[in-house]
Amino acid sequence: MNQVQKRGKFITIEGGEGVGKSSNIAFIQSWVKKNLSRELVLTREPGGTPLAEEIRELFIVPRDELVDENTELLLVFAARAQHIARVIKPNLEQGCWVLSDRFTDATFAYQGGGRGLDTKVILQLERIVQKDLQPDLTILLDLPVEEGLNRASERGDFDRIEREKISFFEDVRNAYLRRAQEDPDRFVIIDASQALDKVQLDISNALEVFCNESGEMQ
Amino acid sequence: MNQVQKRGKFITIEGGEGVGKSSNIAFIQSWVKKNLSRELVLTREPGGTPLAEEIRELFIVPRDELVDENTELLLVFAARAQHIARVIKPNLEQGCWVLSDRFTDATFAYQGGGRGLDTKVILQLERIVQKDLQPDLTILLDLPVEEGLNRASERGDFDRIEREKISFFEDVRNAYLRRAQEDPDRFVIIDASQALDKVQLDISNALEVFCNESGEMQ
Repeated sequence: MNQVQKRGKFITIEGGEGVGKSSNIAFIQSWVKKNLSRELVLTREPGGTPLAEEIRELFIVPRDELVDENTELLLVFAARAQHIARVIKPNLEQGCWVLSDRFTDATFAYQGGGRGLDTKVILQLERIVQKDLQPDLTILLDLPVEEGLNRASERGDFDRIEREKISFFEDVRNAYLRRAQEDPDRFVIIDASQALDKVQLDISNALEVFCNESGEMQ
Repeated sequence: MNQVQKRGKFITIEGGEGVGKSSNIAFIQSWVKKNLSRELVLTREPGGTPLAEEIRELFIVPRDELVDENTELLLVFAARAQHIARVIKPNLEQGCWVLSDRFTDATFAYQGGGRGLDTKVILQLERIVQKDLQPDLTILLDLPVEEGLNRASERGDFDRIEREKISFFEDVRNAYLRRAQEDPDRFVIIDASQALDKVQLDISNALEVFCNESGEMQ
């Protein structure tokens, strides 16, 4: 007889520009495939559904019209509400694991830390949209800002956000680190300035600890 | 010498489908032109700026993807934040009057009354986006639902919202009337089932009272 399907785990990966999220996401995918009998659904923010991707486009595209800070914040949470309702929750309920490239910590880091928007407002919106949903594990890839921007500029795909000035990204990094310190049970900080094999060893250790603690590994 | 420019007045016009907002907006425009030495800026919600109109499009267009209720609500307020920042506030500050075809009362009526979304959440979003901004005068065109829908169907332009069932529109109408009763100083309820000349007489009387009370007419 089958066991009753256990709710899946919700993992997020966070970090500033050029910290290496893409290659480490691929690593996490293959780790889960090798070590767990769980399907892993990969998704990203802002975006994750056709409508949420359309919302993402609205504030990613450079435009002449000055975008009000509240507008940007509300669009981010509108996309997130859709992402949660259509992708994250249904998959977790079916027992899948969900790995999201960025989630609400990015809003606290970019809009809160970077743009200086009122953290209380972000908290209010978080509660409206997420209710009691929080990631079970958040992997924060941390890297000195200049190193990250050098890597990102080699990639050559700067959009409106990435054209901001260095101090903005310092604020983003500090906001991420502050959130990690405030919630050490959920966060694992990975030193992304190390060689990639060392970064991935740290990630696989973190995943192993997480799975042992949550009884996912035999 | 010029007087210091007085802040303009913010007027909103509200009501369900087919109540005759368009023709009465034109009437208000000509009334202001004839009676006041003030410029009147006409705008509408959701929309009012290029970005806000793009946001409007996202949830007006029928689509296969089920739109989460919170997503719709946050998109409405994202468009509103942009509308306030780029159109309503700057014009009021320059002394213009602003007439908006719908504003937050429509959110309480359609998303709150119609869809049954939590009014407390709408209130929270209203405070985040508007802070202390409220319309100075709201003209509510009230009409029995069936009569309004008959008029609207003659126009032939039904979108996703207008295809909802009758009871939805009853809820919308009742929510509008409730809000008007709760804030009688701001609202004027106009019986839109009357002949158009009688409706417009009522509107011009309301505007005259409003202008006298706010010292706008000599």
